[in-house]
Amino acid sequence: MTNEVVFRLATEHDLESIVEMLADDELGTTREQFVLPLPETYLKAFRAIDADPNNELVVACLGNEVVGVQQITFTPYLTHQGGWRATIEGVRTSSSVRGKGIGTELIRWAIRRAKERDCHLVQLTTDKKRGDALRFYERLGFTVSHEGLKMKFR
Amino acid sequence: MTNEVVFRLATEHDLESIVEMLADDELGTTREQFVLPLPETYLKAFRAIDADPNNELVVACLGNEVVGVQQITFTPYLTHQGGWRATIEGVRTSSSVRGKGIGTELIRWAIRRAKERDCHLVQLTTDKKRGDALRFYERLGFTVSHEGLKMKFR
Repeated sequence: MTNEVVFRLATEHDLESIVEMLADDELGTTREQFVLPLPETYLKAFRAIDADPNNELVVACLGNEVVGVQQITFTPYLTHQGGWRATIEGVRTSSSVRGKGIGTELIRWAIRRAKERDCHLVQLTTDKKRGDALRFYERLGFTVSHEGLKMKFR
Repeated sequence: MTNEVVFRLATEHDLESIVEMLADDELGTTREQFVLPLPETYLKAFRAIDADPNNELVVACLGNEVVGVQQITFTPYLTHQGGWRATIEGVRTSSSVRGKGIGTELIRWAIRRAKERDCHLVQLTTDKKRGDALRFYERLGFTVSHEGLKMKFR
């Protein structure tokens, strides 16, 4: 089944499906707002991502259905002798396809894309509450070397 | 003394001082290359950062001397109802001023800048080997809520 998955940049037409996936998540359920029409803030954010050559919002599709999403940010840094990094964020799959390897395909796609963009590493953070996610990423070859700290303003 | 610290965007003229600080670090010493003239990769990365409106390389100066550096990346995301985040990376202070609060001033500056840019949170990761750094950031109000994972390509 995963052979039929197609990855491409998201368009505005995908936005409802994407926000539905973001809201259908153990942590996202309290912080997203999936109502139609979508709150304008999602559209504004989509357009900012879409306009930025260093941000790619990628969807996984099965036929006409959007079944997965992730955002990849490419950042130039002075550290590591001026190396670029790829940061993966907001990885979600549709509950209709969970357990079918779509998440794995998404991350492998991001890793290939990071290499294409000449990054020296790919990184992500995952909430300590998501125990399953941590094991998932470790199986894919990530090393849990850092602590992830946040300060929320509102 | 910290009253006299001035923060501004870095210029190419600051690059040698910045790379010297990046190399004079327990982890940076093995991965940076502070030789003059600087390896071209640093200059290329600097120009990519400087050209990107969503990346700011900030230096702390005491008089004419560059005594601290950090990079702030502003990223639009769909998550959190389309919220922007600020990510702090590559925070270093000169060994000549350590213990004088320059690091604290740098981070507080980044937090103010993140609010100015209408971010809903500021985030960073720190190597689990840097125990002092973790306590430093917790004192400043960060919460250690995430695991930071990396996959290095080379």
